[in-house]
Amino acid sequence: MSSDTGATRNLTIDGARLWASLMEMARIGATAKGGVCRLALTDLDRESRDLFVRWCEQAGCSVRVDPMGNIFARRAGRDASLPPVATGSHLDSQPTGGRFDGVYGVLAGLEVIRTLNDHDVRTDAPVELVVWTDEEGARFPPAMVGSGVYAGVFDLAYGHSRQDLDGKRLGDELARIGYKGDAPMGQAFGAFFETHIEQGPILEAAGLSVGVVTGAQGTRWYDVVLTGAECHAGPTPMDRRRDALAAAGTLLARIYALAHDNPPHGRATVGEFRCYPGSRNTVPGRVELTVDLRHPDASVLETMHAGLGHACAAVAAATGVEVTRDLIWDSPPVAFDPGCVAAVRRGADLLGYSHMDVVSGAGHDAVYISRITPTAMVFIPCEDGISHNEVENATPEHVEAGANVLLHAMLDKAGV
Amino acid sequence: MSSDTGATRNLTIDGARLWASLMEMARIGATAKGGVCRLALTDLDRESRDLFVRWCEQAGCSVRVDPMGNIFARRAGRDASLPPVATGSHLDSQPTGGRFDGVYGVLAGLEVIRTLNDHDVRTDAPVELVVWTDEEGARFPPAMVGSGVYAGVFDLAYGHSRQDLDGKRLGDELARIGYKGDAPMGQAFGAFFETHIEQGPILEAAGLSVGVVTGAQGTRWYDVVLTGAECHAGPTPMDRRRDALAAAGTLLARIYALAHDNPPHGRATVGEFRCYPGSRNTVPGRVELTVDLRHPDASVLETMHAGLGHACAAVAAATGVEVTRDLIWDSPPVAFDPGCVAAVRRGADLLGYSHMDVVSGAGHDAVYISRITPTAMVFIPCEDGISHNEVENATPEHVEAGANVLLHAMLDKAGV
Repeated sequence: MSSDTGATRNLTIDGARLWASLMEMARIGATAKGGVCRLALTDLDRESRDLFVRWCEQAGCSVRVDPMGNIFARRAGRDASLPPVATGSHLDSQPTGGRFDGVYGVLAGLEVIRTLNDHDVRTDAPVELVVWTDEEGARFPPAMVGSGVYAGVFDLAYGHSRQDLDGKRLGDELARIGYKGDAPMGQAFGAFFETHIEQGPILEAAGLSVGVVTGAQGTRWYDVVLTGAECHAGPTPMDRRRDALAAAGTLLARIYALAHDNPPHGRATVGEFRCYPGSRNTVPGRVELTVDLRHPDASVLETMHAGLGHACAAVAAATGVEVTRDLIWDSPPVAFDPGCVAAVRRGADLLGYSHMDVVSGAGHDAVYISRITPTAMVFIPCEDGISHNEVENATPEHVEAGANVLLHAMLDKAGV
Repeated sequence: MSSDTGATRNLTIDGARLWASLMEMARIGATAKGGVCRLALTDLDRESRDLFVRWCEQAGCSVRVDPMGNIFARRAGRDASLPPVATGSHLDSQPTGGRFDGVYGVLAGLEVIRTLNDHDVRTDAPVELVVWTDEEGARFPPAMVGSGVYAGVFDLAYGHSRQDLDGKRLGDELARIGYKGDAPMGQAFGAFFETHIEQGPILEAAGLSVGVVTGAQGTRWYDVVLTGAECHAGPTPMDRRRDALAAAGTLLARIYALAHDNPPHGRATVGEFRCYPGSRNTVPGRVELTVDLRHPDASVLETMHAGLGHACAAVAAATGVEVTRDLIWDSPPVAFDPGCVAAVRRGADLLGYSHMDVVSGAGHDAVYISRITPTAMVFIPCEDGISHNEVENATPEHVEAGANVLLHAMLDKAGV
């Protein structure tokens, strides 16, 4: 196959059309504050899927759906025996989500196909556009369920058995909205690219248009419990207390130090923190907290893991409060395929976009798909780094830039 | 009036009888774990009141009840024009309370009266034994409602309007159990003494039998709110966060320092601590916490108050997290009457009990009564300093010692 040169070298997508499609899709589940609420497998999710399928069929694609409700829209290539070069993301949103998270990666892929159609560009490999089911996990936890089942991280029965707060099952809801298909699962692609808003502040702060995503951070989740002794806040001298909250306060500082000691990629977050019995004049006897540690380098993450153990032991020894730590999830760092990463970087260079290499801090469908397919991602800045929020925003210029980089990365891999 | 010398000098109470009465009263509302559940103005509270009144009448006392349900049992003195020398505490308990908190102070007073009867001791002033309504506040918050209304801290309508979780009103429940009387309220006593378990570990740690309570700590209660910014735990670098929990961790250390910097009486407790939104992979945007600062010296408490303000401002400046602090309750330190305190100390010396001066960390009916009457308290050790707990315990020897000290302190003030 030939590389992306010659005739396609100056090809660009239609930024205005892409923006218009984004805004049209954002009407489905639009919220008063300018965001989107389009929870997985609701009637609104069906409406967005139906619009997506209609647009794909209008663009000449053949559309299939697999048993997890993942949608595959294929534009034929010259050689049907080649594995498709794929892109995509998700259409579902957080309850108070924005207009770009997920849907941008889907519609950037659609815009690539439309552009290839406009210019009558024929690729060697087929081009495939995917919508992954239930990426957010907001209605059916955990996150990235559709891509996870596709990639074999979860089995299909697990995926179908996910329940929402009303006890409705993901598999039943898929059937209800008409998106429980029979296309085969787990087949590798020639390559997979996902375009996404960064969901963090790094690109905006650096004043750059594109992030070349080289991989994703490793993440470890812990449950930590501190057990002291409840006592009366009045009569009990400070040196006679085993105050679980005071001990937790000391532990917090050591947890954040695990990240501060490993800049710039180290992250430490305590997101849940519960204190018992929760009475104003009783010294707390128990604290439960969660720890989320992240780093893109497995050896550094291992060092942070050990450091958390040392911190818990040191706080216990210093305070007399018992401290237990359970590792409940261990997601190793992901290094994306160097060839796909290079294709993204070349795409940005070709079009003269300012860019830097970045590591994804959040999980994405691409992280699971990278287990079965050479994969990379394209990031664009988002306003103030905010996402999972109705005020989530991105500029038309960056939206256009990301789709242009995607176009050329896909051409590079699909062959023209 | 003469002091407690001569014939009464060697008088002692009957420790076995007092212990037996305590154990008999502990059968009312007894729990499987060896504690007591006798919430204010329940049928069990009525049962304990009825037993108390029967015992007082058997001891020759005249019994009256005031509109707050406070019960007054009087043993006549030589001079009916003298204000009575009073003692007492409460019969209600915490939901998982113990066999001594409150009821010990009531039955120690009864034992004093029984002892005076046994030995045919006539006092100049009448001796009065009081049961205060709803000291715990566990069913009808706040705490110390009966003594508070009696002393004019609250008005009667406020007291009657207190509601339990079922919406039942204190005044209605008083009438229902037959303890809404018409005895006058707010009259001063010649002196008031309250005997109580310490509810803290100081006496036990010092190996002493009696605490001479010189006053009660001042207490200030605060609500503190920290407002940062929620963001995604993965993509957001540490130096771009305004993590409300990380800021709260720093603040906690400074709050505890307010007490550690003012030993041995300074106390700082954060009893309630809530963290929002409470998602494992979201940096917390909001923390709400309570602060309880205590010190027996008003000027030190004022310094601690100012220190809390400085701490909040410093944390806000260092982290970019907004910190607000509201003072919601200010209970000044109480210094008990020097004459009453001296009477308690003389009682302990007279009987050869080891003792030390202590400051009450908890609230007691005596704190409110001290506003209208010369007052002091007698503490005895409790096992491991634990109270408000079914395992609450005290030894028969200490129970006896406290009642003997009470006897002589009352004789000293009542005149024999």
